[in-house]
Amino acid sequence: MTQQTFNTIGLIGKQNDPRVGEALDTLSHYLLEQSLSVHLDEVNADTVTNSALEVCTRNEIGKRCDLAIVVGGDGTLLNAARALADHNVPLAGVNLGRLGFLTDISHDNMLAYLGEILQGQYTTEERFLLDSAVIRQGEKLNEATAFNDVVIHKWNAARMIELETYVNGKLVNQLRSDGLIIATPTGSTAYALSAGGPIIDPTLNALLLVPVCPHTMSNRPIVISGDNEIEVVICDRNHDNAQVTCDGQISFGLSAGDRIKIRKKEQSIHLIHPLQHDHYEILRAKLHWAEIS
Amino acid sequence: MTQQTFNTIGLIGKQNDPRVGEALDTLSHYLLEQSLSVHLDEVNADTVTNSALEVCTRNEIGKRCDLAIVVGGDGTLLNAARALADHNVPLAGVNLGRLGFLTDISHDNMLAYLGEILQGQYTTEERFLLDSAVIRQGEKLNEATAFNDVVIHKWNAARMIELETYVNGKLVNQLRSDGLIIATPTGSTAYALSAGGPIIDPTLNALLLVPVCPHTMSNRPIVISGDNEIEVVICDRNHDNAQVTCDGQISFGLSAGDRIKIRKKEQSIHLIHPLQHDHYEILRAKLHWAEIS
Amino acid sequence: MTQQTFNTIGLIGKQNDPRVGEALDTLSHYLLEQSLSVHLDEVNADTVTNSALEVCTRNEIGKRCDLAIVVGGDGTLLNAARALADHNVPLAGVNLGRLGFLTDISHDNMLAYLGEILQGQYTTEERFLLDSAVIRQGEKLNEATAFNDVVIHKWNAARMIELETYVNGKLVNQLRSDGLIIATPTGSTAYALSAGGPIIDPTLNALLLVPVCPHTMSNRPIVISGDNEIEVVICDRNHDNAQVTCDGQISFGLSAGDRIKIRKKEQSIHLIHPLQHDHYEILRAKLHWAEIS
Amino acid sequence: MTQQTFNTIGLIGKQNDPRVGEALDTLSHYLLEQSLSVHLDEVNADTVTNSALEVCTRNEIGKRCDLAIVVGGDGTLLNAARALADHNVPLAGVNLGRLGFLTDISHDNMLAYLGEILQGQYTTEERFLLDSAVIRQGEKLNEATAFNDVVIHKWNAARMIELETYVNGKLVNQLRSDGLIIATPTGSTAYALSAGGPIIDPTLNALLLVPVCPHTMSNRPIVISGDNEIEVVICDRNHDNAQVTCDGQISFGLSAGDRIKIRKKEQSIHLIHPLQHDHYEILRAKLHWAEIS
Repeated sequence: MTQQTFNTIGLIGKQNDPRVGEALDTLSHYLLEQSLSVHLDEVNADTVTNSALEVCTRNEIGKRCDLAIVVGGDGTLLNAARALADHNVPLAGVNLGRLGFLTDISHDNMLAYLGEILQGQYTTEERFLLDSAVIRQGEKLNEATAFNDVVIHKWNAARMIELETYVNGKLVNQLRSDGLIIATPTGSTAYALSAGGPIIDPTLNALLLVPVCPHTMSNRPIVISGDNEIEVVICDRNHDNAQVTCDGQISFGLSAGDRIKIRKKEQSIHLIHPLQHDHYEILRAKLHWAEIS
Repeated sequence: MTQQTFNTIGLIGKQNDPRVGEALDTLSHYLLEQSLSVHLDEVNADTVTNSALEVCTRNEIGKRCDLAIVVGGDGTLLNAARALADHNVPLAGVNLGRLGFLTDISHDNMLAYLGEILQGQYTTEERFLLDSAVIRQGEKLNEATAFNDVVIHKWNAARMIELETYVNGKLVNQLRSDGLIIATPTGSTAYALSAGGPIIDPTLNALLLVPVCPHTMSNRPIVISGDNEIEVVICDRNHDNAQVTCDGQISFGLSAGDRIKIRKKEQSIHLIHPLQHDHYEILRAKLHWAEIS
Repeated sequence: MTQQTFNTIGLIGKQNDPRVGEALDTLSHYLLEQSLSVHLDEVNADTVTNSALEVCTRNEIGKRCDLAIVVGGDGTLLNAARALADHNVPLAGVNLGRLGFLTDISHDNMLAYLGEILQGQYTTEERFLLDSAVIRQGEKLNEATAFNDVVIHKWNAARMIELETYVNGKLVNQLRSDGLIIATPTGSTAYALSAGGPIIDPTLNALLLVPVCPHTMSNRPIVISGDNEIEVVICDRNHDNAQVTCDGQISFGLSAGDRIKIRKKEQSIHLIHPLQHDHYEILRAKLHWAEIS
Repeated sequence: MTQQTFNTIGLIGKQNDPRVGEALDTLSHYLLEQSLSVHLDEVNADTVTNSALEVCTRNEIGKRCDLAIVVGGDGTLLNAARALADHNVPLAGVNLGRLGFLTDISHDNMLAYLGEILQGQYTTEERFLLDSAVIRQGEKLNEATAFNDVVIHKWNAARMIELETYVNGKLVNQLRSDGLIIATPTGSTAYALSAGGPIIDPTLNALLLVPVCPHTMSNRPIVISGDNEIEVVICDRNHDNAQVTCDGQISFGLSAGDRIKIRKKEQSIHLIHPLQHDHYEILRAKLHWAEIS
């Protein structure tokens, strides 16, 4: 089955990595040879010198391109996905090292796989993002987007924080812990996994709540519908030692009484995969499941 | 909002429990006073002596009743639910001890809550079941139904078993372990929880796979769509020391090469709850979440 | 078997808790009636008004008393134990709320149990403490004492820290995680338990290493001899976002290259228990083991 | 430091493995060339044909040899260690595949390492074993030895078993679970690890209790002194569906009321390691700790 083909390609690379510069150079030559229009993220401008390339902002890439190719690791793709979330441009990820969960095209086969994708030989997978907002005394602060997770955690003190979690307005529980992770299925293989959460199939419409080092030993990860709205309240006796962080990349300090509202973002992300893509194969490789010692 | 009312009520009780006999007696008097038709499960026939009651099989209860009231613990309701699964009769559960996840009407308030339910003051919750079948040399054996879980586990030997798990025909992983639990959201608070699985909201359309004491330490519970089909293959070197069990109540011995197919059952269960029902309140009580020591 | 009796008693109470003031008042009257010499921690001076009491520093209590009675929770006793560690005064703990692991004399039976203890009817249990020191560029900084645990953890950033752990100079592993807990058996029921560690019998000569949210899923708690020396090295790419904390109460910021050395403290703590003391009974009560739901 | 040298060597190999036969052949030639006396386990008699070898029982090996070389995997060494436990012969383990925790001499370097060992260049490590006995109506049944673990577990039914555990006569807890593992430090990296237990340093004098899939979610592994005596009682309502198994190799059916007593065996095992032996290096390799994905 051949799908939509692409004409205007955006290139986004991890910064400060010379191998990424080389890969972007190779990619841009290859794409220009195919008579495609190529836009390069301005942060990578100094790594590629080709007058046929148009250097622009990520926002411009979002507006003009019909495919964005991200070169780097999963962190680079998380970052690009959040930046492009309001546009409708699908993303393909190239990884220079070990394959990532999101950057599933290996550098070694990069041109072959992208060639197939450009000819319409690919699959599209929809992934959802999270909208997070802090409500302080009735006012909405710090609206932010997360692809992996929104984490509410202690930060500038050693003591546990106290939270109350509500789902669609109903109390789930009170929690004394190092924090609480609210993850998408995409994020279930990131920080949530380190904190003891399950693996959620990326196509499932679900949200994952994982307590981090809960004081009550019977606290467990909870999986709810992706259409639910989550509200986390910072309890009174925490004096400014909690923080909310999206994808481990954007943080905001919290005060007692703050309410953090988290829900699925209206706009979703479309990941482009080679036809050979197999999510469980990546899981097996990354989690060493095959290595029966 | 007032819902459908009920005219023909089935009563099903836990066997060999004198308190259940008393409760069935009280219930049948109450229901007959309301001029309702009351059918009693034949296994409880000797505990209630009232000529206005019709004693019949569970199958007859399924055919004739528009509400079944189950008195006992969650195990009794699991059993009744499987027996009534092919009929469309909703179930309400009365618990004589601590509230169960499924039997959420306490004995103390039994008549008050059932009075409201009979007047149409209730909520209905749909829960799904699993169909399990063993395929041996092309032949389908041991078709069975599970409400909580299908468990493939070692039984008559101390050594681990080896399994391969497929979802929609794709290999997930090979597993050396004491077993593998395939649970519904309902079952996520049963055996799967003891094995380290997450809590799944009962309304989520999801299946949960939990390895039991996996040899590979990075194996983790996996949550997938409830519409997926799971196939578990018993690997060659296990000589008849594996078994498949539904809800911990029905078992079947397995041989090397057997394939166990598990998928959502077409017919679902409808649980009737009092309007005050709050799933998370039951979770908090049963898992001692409130008791911050 | 009657043991040594006590003549000079120190009283140390949790601050800013009116019930503690009342209990100290009751205790001091009772002890003075027995013709014992009573010293009161200066931080509690304003809660007890009795001219026969000698108000003094904790250091003076350590020098002069042959028994210190601590009134409050486990946190208060942790604090007092560290302060008195260099002296040889045994500690008895009175808890005003639910029994603690360390404060195992309930307020309700306080005078009866202390009466027995004063008559030599008690058991003594030895617990060890940890010495922690930070070595930066060859210089020893921040020597501190811990009764529960020394925790090396991320603090002012969301990202994991990287550590190397050595036992008696041999590399154990490299760790990417939120942190690493080095706990005494006493501390095994504190923060280490929240992070997934085992319970260590308080009389065992052992140290417990528990990774907090490790990135590598096969990382596990490790139990080693209490006579081993542990050294944790902060790896290079962590830019000042790690911290070391003793008993969750004393913190010190770390830099890349810092080495944290942890070993058993020479001086130990002696806890005085009523003859009825049963460690497992407290465990069962505090961890809700009896409540088979 | 040169240690005791060896004159009479026993060879014990895994059965039914052709590579083991070849390795035994190579070893026996090598040892005979050194003018050593070599005894071969009778179960391996058909794999080596050399008239200078003395074929004998394991018991005879125990009596006559001053070193036993075990060729196979950890399971082979466990088996040999139990058989030789009453004698005082130290063991060295050669592994033909991936290194084991116990068989830490790789086949590739076998002759070089054994050469050094025969010249007294080695370290000796003492490991302890467990004595397990079932007491039924006052009578002692089924005395057995374990090197890794004694496991009390459900076997011929899907339902949990109920146990009571006592340490030195004091109740620890009542447990509803799939089973309970009592492990030596050696066994902490075997089945206990799959059930969620910690890693115990092999030199620590400690016993590890790990519940398997406990119904009460706050149950945790417990580490106690190796000098303690453990008693596990099978509670009344389990009708013959429990079993006790040593090292996963020897099983015995249990009845309600049975008491299983477990304590350190008087005789210990001495493992001979090459000087390069590093326990943590094996841990890192076997648990994939180095592979930071």
